[in-house]
Amino acid sequence: MKYIDLNGDLGESFGAYKIGNDQELIKLVTSVNIACGFHAGDPHVMKQTAAFAAREGRAIGAHPGYPDLNGFGRRKMDLSANEVYDIVVYQIGALAAFAKTVKVRLNHVKPHGALYNAAARDQKLADAIAGAVKDVDPSLILYGLSGSCLIEAGKAAGLRTASEVFADRTYQPDGTLTPRTQPGALIEDESDALRQVLDMVHHGIVRTAGGRTVPIQADTLCVHGDGAHALAFAKKIRLALEEDGIEIRPL
Amino acid sequence: MKYIDLNGDLGESFGAYKIGNDQELIKLVTSVNIACGFHAGDPHVMKQTAAFAAREGRAIGAHPGYPDLNGFGRRKMDLSANEVYDIVVYQIGALAAFAKTVKVRLNHVKPHGALYNAAARDQKLADAIAGAVKDVDPSLILYGLSGSCLIEAGKAAGLRTASEVFADRTYQPDGTLTPRTQPGALIEDESDALRQVLDMVHHGIVRTAGGRTVPIQADTLCVHGDGAHALAFAKKIRLALEEDGIEIRPL
Amino acid sequence: MKYIDLNGDLGESFGAYKIGNDQELIKLVTSVNIACGFHAGDPHVMKQTAAFAAREGRAIGAHPGYPDLNGFGRRKMDLSANEVYDIVVYQIGALAAFAKTVKVRLNHVKPHGALYNAAARDQKLADAIAGAVKDVDPSLILYGLSGSCLIEAGKAAGLRTASEVFADRTYQPDGTLTPRTQPGALIEDESDALRQVLDMVHHGIVRTAGGRTVPIQADTLCVHGDGAHALAFAKKIRLALEEDGIEIRPL
Amino acid sequence: MKYIDLNGDLGESFGAYKIGNDQELIKLVTSVNIACGFHAGDPHVMKQTAAFAAREGRAIGAHPGYPDLNGFGRRKMDLSANEVYDIVVYQIGALAAFAKTVKVRLNHVKPHGALYNAAARDQKLADAIAGAVKDVDPSLILYGLSGSCLIEAGKAAGLRTASEVFADRTYQPDGTLTPRTQPGALIEDESDALRQVLDMVHHGIVRTAGGRTVPIQADTLCVHGDGAHALAFAKKIRLALEEDGIEIRPL
Repeated sequence: MKYIDLNGDLGESFGAYKIGNDQELIKLVTSVNIACGFHAGDPHVMKQTAAFAAREGRAIGAHPGYPDLNGFGRRKMDLSANEVYDIVVYQIGALAAFAKTVKVRLNHVKPHGALYNAAARDQKLADAIAGAVKDVDPSLILYGLSGSCLIEAGKAAGLRTASEVFADRTYQPDGTLTPRTQPGALIEDESDALRQVLDMVHHGIVRTAGGRTVPIQADTLCVHGDGAHALAFAKKIRLALEEDGIEIRPL
Repeated sequence: MKYIDLNGDLGESFGAYKIGNDQELIKLVTSVNIACGFHAGDPHVMKQTAAFAAREGRAIGAHPGYPDLNGFGRRKMDLSANEVYDIVVYQIGALAAFAKTVKVRLNHVKPHGALYNAAARDQKLADAIAGAVKDVDPSLILYGLSGSCLIEAGKAAGLRTASEVFADRTYQPDGTLTPRTQPGALIEDESDALRQVLDMVHHGIVRTAGGRTVPIQADTLCVHGDGAHALAFAKKIRLALEEDGIEIRPL
Repeated sequence: MKYIDLNGDLGESFGAYKIGNDQELIKLVTSVNIACGFHAGDPHVMKQTAAFAAREGRAIGAHPGYPDLNGFGRRKMDLSANEVYDIVVYQIGALAAFAKTVKVRLNHVKPHGALYNAAARDQKLADAIAGAVKDVDPSLILYGLSGSCLIEAGKAAGLRTASEVFADRTYQPDGTLTPRTQPGALIEDESDALRQVLDMVHHGIVRTAGGRTVPIQADTLCVHGDGAHALAFAKKIRLALEEDGIEIRPL
Repeated sequence: MKYIDLNGDLGESFGAYKIGNDQELIKLVTSVNIACGFHAGDPHVMKQTAAFAAREGRAIGAHPGYPDLNGFGRRKMDLSANEVYDIVVYQIGALAAFAKTVKVRLNHVKPHGALYNAAARDQKLADAIAGAVKDVDPSLILYGLSGSCLIEAGKAAGLRTASEVFADRTYQPDGTLTPRTQPGALIEDESDALRQVLDMVHHGIVRTAGGRTVPIQADTLCVHGDGAHALAFAKKIRLALEEDGIEIRPL
């Protein structure tokens, strides 16, 4: 039987600032990525979110990002590989402590935003992240873009990895995502997006914008909870997967 | 045979900013308290300091403080007990991760500066800190001012505690430190300070400013490394303890 | 003819985080207090908010707070009078620059949250704030709690001051606000709150919880925009003031 | 008579952290660039430094940087041109307020570190910075790398500009600095460095590594105060300039 994990970003609120829709999103996912206070989240939000995810029985992961709250971790920062190693160790450790306070173990690590993108393309940064994960806890699963440097780095480090795919993004012949700055980067039609997900999970392939078929590993799918549309679409994805006999479960 | 631990604050540098004299101070202590990035320290400094302390074979502790780098954690902030719990969990976790990367276990937790002082007097904050330590790792030793709320909280939580004493501060009849804002708070004469330490360790007593003798528990002594004078004095304390047949070792 | 200013806090969003209801609140007020990046707001939000307030023709003020984004400036920090002077100068300057980019002058300064409360009771902090305002621009109006140390400090410094009153808070016989921690601190009944405002503006008096009448200076009234209820109540206040022939205008 | 300004970075300390040698460096320069709290400096340091520079009669400039204290503003951040405009306005305003408290006017703006480098090469960022300077105060002088996009942007915006040159860096045939990552980027020999400065000021030329002579505008020379060597070299530069009949004065 085919299966896939659905992951979602949680715990991105900060102090008086509320963001996201954790209550609804958690119903749709099997694993959650919790912000660690650098690009979003704070110690109070982390505790609440870890407790919430533990109550709901979801697999809990750290979601480390660049130290840039004002930019929500979406702005690339020129950190060296050593610096990236250090900030990832720090953030995993902080979240792992909150996981302990609610008697659960950390399941995975998924870099956030600009760090995720940088780790997809830059082998040195990818190796630094994989090394950080391994040195803190070699049983953690490393989530990264399917086919990226980060997945390669995780495997080379002997970590379990989860290759992440996207429903609403188009892919290039080399298996990478079409950059958002290019036309046709997003799949606007929902049925096209659903078909792409089913192709990925059932057949391990994705059709590129140019019509070619390329192989792709699909262990986990990212779903979003910001806005009514995103939630509704995530529900459709779940339904389509289930109707097609695909089990939705954590890795 | 009598014994005592000597502890010192390490890893307080930040980015391009260097502070303290870690290379010299570490020679004089048996346990080190490493700043965790809130009042001092950063991920890179934490990694370097944990590796350095591990190489030198010192017991490594977390030194959590208020989130106030500009005030070096010396300014009281009105955080609730819940908020204090959260920032302590976070900081212990972050440092514990760096300890893992250098294959050592965290040994203890000692709050820093204004948080240390608040936890000495405020039972709710003290309980919050003890609870945070226990929930993250009940094998950690909680360092606190001898006779303070924090030691009481640690014992009530079932933690091992280390009662900290000071060589150059005078004590009140109730066993508390004379506030720095009062005259006679500091012991200026070095031989008086040395005698106070020896009395504490040998006899479990301290003579107050008014001449009374009160009992005091002395598990660990805080030594400082900032400035030539502090280092020279710390060396004299070590020598005096050793000459008096007191073993200097971690708890 | 009697008159009063209505002031509201604007520009408290931060990066990806949206808070408040600036679009609606600005319609109800004659002066706005813009957060300056320490407890809320960021450079981008400040520019947008200054431009927005300028377009709408509102008097623009700086709203400096403690350097505590995570606590939204609501947690007291033990800053010295010198440190308070420094952070107030800094924040006024930052906002004044954005005012220049939209070709308006800064009109006033109103401390935020815990800093506002501290400045109401602590004469040294109040003097520090008044000194900061005067040294940056002596034409600025200093907003403070009516009858507080801050108003006194402003007058002593030769500044114009605006005594602020509240519609939904009860007052003590000495003219101070009943602390929120005490029962009866809030006026639950809207018509009572409206009557209190009219009494203040028309007669310069407020009835205490104990039924006594004490004099009070009412130059400006604080209105809130967070939540549908707050906005609806602010509209009622405006209407009640206008129906009673009180002009609503900036100072 | 030929003349040149010598500028130095001041006020880079932060809280308990001291850096640089402001007391000695200020003796050697005619204009100072004061950090504004984003990459270095804090409100207290800014006040002290502005007061110090005013007492010593030096021209005072703002030294805005990326919001990255941990990286000392030396790490490129992918801020948009709008975001750069906003952080520059903010930082100029903050420092201008401290200048007012010591009764001096701000003289200039010089971006720091990675922002300086980005503004040298990226015309959009350069235009954003020039626009920020102009919108806050069109009388400010914009300092930038000689021949860079930033100088061009300043001129296009109608600002006075100061073309900055370096004594110990080699130049490329197109007038740009040899990147530090390339061999031969630094001039190791002091007499070579002194000769380069004199050629720049006297003849408006610089000899490239390849031996060609290219024109260069030299309005201000950057001198450093960190370390005994840097100070000694800065003194030699001053002496060499004076002996050659070049006046050292602000712009």
